[in-house]
Amino acid sequence: MAVTFARGFAAGTASCGIKAFTAGATAIPSGQQKDLCVVQSDRVCDTGGVFTTNKVKSASVVIDHLHLQHNRVQALVVNSGNANACTGAQGFKDALLMAKITADHLDLDPDQVLVSSTGVIGRYMPMDAVKSGIIDACADLDAAHGMDAAHAIMTTDSKPKLAELELYLGVPVRIGGMSKGSGMIHPNMATMLAYITTDAAVEPGLMASLVKPVADRSFNQVTVDGDSSTNDTFLMLANGAAGNAPIAAGSAEAEKLQAGLLKVAQQLARAIARDGEGATKLITVRIAGAASLDDARLAARTVASSSLVKTAIHGGDPNWGRIVCALGYSGAEMAIDRLHLSIGGLVVFERGAGVAVDLGAVRSTFEQPEIEVVATLGMGNAEAEAWGCDLSEEYVRINADYTT
Amino acid sequence: MAVTFARGFAAGTASCGIKAFTAGATAIPSGQQKDLCVVQSDRVCDTGGVFTTNKVKSASVVIDHLHLQHNRVQALVVNSGNANACTGAQGFKDALLMAKITADHLDLDPDQVLVSSTGVIGRYMPMDAVKSGIIDACADLDAAHGMDAAHAIMTTDSKPKLAELELYLGVPVRIGGMSKGSGMIHPNMATMLAYITTDAAVEPGLMASLVKPVADRSFNQVTVDGDSSTNDTFLMLANGAAGNAPIAAGSAEAEKLQAGLLKVAQQLARAIARDGEGATKLITVRIAGAASLDDARLAARTVASSSLVKTAIHGGDPNWGRIVCALGYSGAEMAIDRLHLSIGGLVVFERGAGVAVDLGAVRSTFEQPEIEVVATLGMGNAEAEAWGCDLSEEYVRINADYTT
Repeated sequence: MAVTFARGFAAGTASCGIKAFTAGATAIPSGQQKDLCVVQSDRVCDTGGVFTTNKVKSASVVIDHLHLQHNRVQALVVNSGNANACTGAQGFKDALLMAKITADHLDLDPDQVLVSSTGVIGRYMPMDAVKSGIIDACADLDAAHGMDAAHAIMTTDSKPKLAELELYLGVPVRIGGMSKGSGMIHPNMATMLAYITTDAAVEPGLMASLVKPVADRSFNQVTVDGDSSTNDTFLMLANGAAGNAPIAAGSAEAEKLQAGLLKVAQQLARAIARDGEGATKLITVRIAGAASLDDARLAARTVASSSLVKTAIHGGDPNWGRIVCALGYSGAEMAIDRLHLSIGGLVVFERGAGVAVDLGAVRSTFEQPEIEVVATLGMGNAEAEAWGCDLSEEYVRINADYTT
Repeated sequence: MAVTFARGFAAGTASCGIKAFTAGATAIPSGQQKDLCVVQSDRVCDTGGVFTTNKVKSASVVIDHLHLQHNRVQALVVNSGNANACTGAQGFKDALLMAKITADHLDLDPDQVLVSSTGVIGRYMPMDAVKSGIIDACADLDAAHGMDAAHAIMTTDSKPKLAELELYLGVPVRIGGMSKGSGMIHPNMATMLAYITTDAAVEPGLMASLVKPVADRSFNQVTVDGDSSTNDTFLMLANGAAGNAPIAAGSAEAEKLQAGLLKVAQQLARAIARDGEGATKLITVRIAGAASLDDARLAARTVASSSLVKTAIHGGDPNWGRIVCALGYSGAEMAIDRLHLSIGGLVVFERGAGVAVDLGAVRSTFEQPEIEVVATLGMGNAEAEAWGCDLSEEYVRINADYTT
């Protein structure tokens, strides 16, 4: 399941009390007591990662950057409940120690372990609890524990997020993954963590070259660039257990593998949007006819993250003017008289003005659990999608009282 | 009062049913039935204006751009309830007609009238009602009706916003103004209108040269650049009724006048933040020690507009990590070990880590109606302020059901 769907990967989890320590026991949703997981590959992986662009980076993100340089990763250790960010020199020591303890128990070197943390900013890690949690998780390692791992990385998530896919590249190749994240007004401010594992054999460096293009069409479309949390992390690990001939960059197999990785990543990204804090609806924004791919991505993200669009959709309010307005300030090239806009398949705007549609019909499409907004800009041929969720009173309640 | 505080200005208002026509009568808060105002100067004004940067501009914004080129403005006509945006060719005709009808009744040329609209996007103006409203408002013109005008431009505002100031520049010079706007998650998406009038005599073009620097330190600090509604408008008019010697650009008097205009503009801007939809608190973010003025303005705006900071403050939650995080993704130059952060006078972060403060004391400062966040970046000498409000469940309720 999830990160252990691909062969050669095992996961182990522990409930070591980090959430209780930082958040107070009463704040922990039931079923979320697990707060630490270890993922291990039975052989060295080719690994690629992308991280937050925030100038304030958590200790774990800085450590992972260093460890990735050697590209011989074989394990991950992830905790939820404490972000280990804004914790100064002590934070770096703690993140390094998490890698070292994990490495010691798995007979690896510390730079073969990547560390992630998510949770409250500005609290020191309760290292005694973390130490015994790592020991417990290492003892729990099993290929059947992928679902437990997906639970252990959750914070305000209402459900675990996983995806799996099998491809045929001469031999069957498996791809699986897990993600967490659900702060959806400015999605990128709530930490997003995502891990995709595959048993494909690849030439060294392929994952590093694929991780950014995959992120740009998946997680970065629920996460506005340059506007990210201290801890955002997306890792892709390929361990070669499938036994195929190693895939080289630029080959037809690399393209197929990339398409599979993207599919899994998009499924995990959509799950994050759907599980937005307080969300009741998934919003898919599809932009066509943009002047460039950057424009298409930007316009899609801007509409999906507009608070006024999100509240309108929450209220089932067919206020398409807010969508046109968001396109207008997105920065994407557009001309109002070329814009064509539909909501749930109903055309609502064209030739510079609103179309006389049955507003009752528009309203009922807004009331569906999944809503698709399609804007054709008429400026070129580029296309992109972005995913968001509606904005509800519940979002405010969740975020008004998070640390306390 | 307000726009009629300066000598030589009169205002008139009407309740012509635009809000009822577009929003349905039940959606109109009581006391807000006025939906049109005319402001007239007894002589030609020197006028400066800044408008939305949205690529989708309302008809009135486009018309005002044209009319300002002749710089002989003598009247304004403003309606609330309908934005006249995304209304195609008909929208331009209607905006021009509003200027023409007003001009006809005041014995002016159409290009001496500026037009503003605010309200729902994508509905045609009910021109029969607007016509009779303009006639009524012109008949109502009086120097005592400044407060009525401030009421007539309101949409979801809970109260009228006005400011007044008297300066001595050889003779007493008066400055007054009114503003509206209260959509506060992305403040700039709810239309902001602001008008400042002064009886100072100035050389032609002075207002055009001062309007941008004044806006940059006031309205643009509650309104994120490039992320604005279709109708945002800020106008400054100087009619010379005070009888001083005309003030030239670059003179000491111009500096004094600019400082006065800025003070009035900041008061109007703060009133907008304080009256954010569903807001219960005014948040002032003061950045010091920034590498540049642009950095200082950007960092201040980013913190003030962070949904996670806004919800934390709403909940009285001393989660300063969200402030540090927002500074980190703002794009402003910063180094975590140089950052010094205080909330309500209590230092909460320095030397790269949180300070052990009495969280109860921090919490009680968060619970005040006005909260000041001060961040010293330690990168230079530039300073700026921005204003925002907390994010409440009430915001969602207001915006989930706006048109219907």
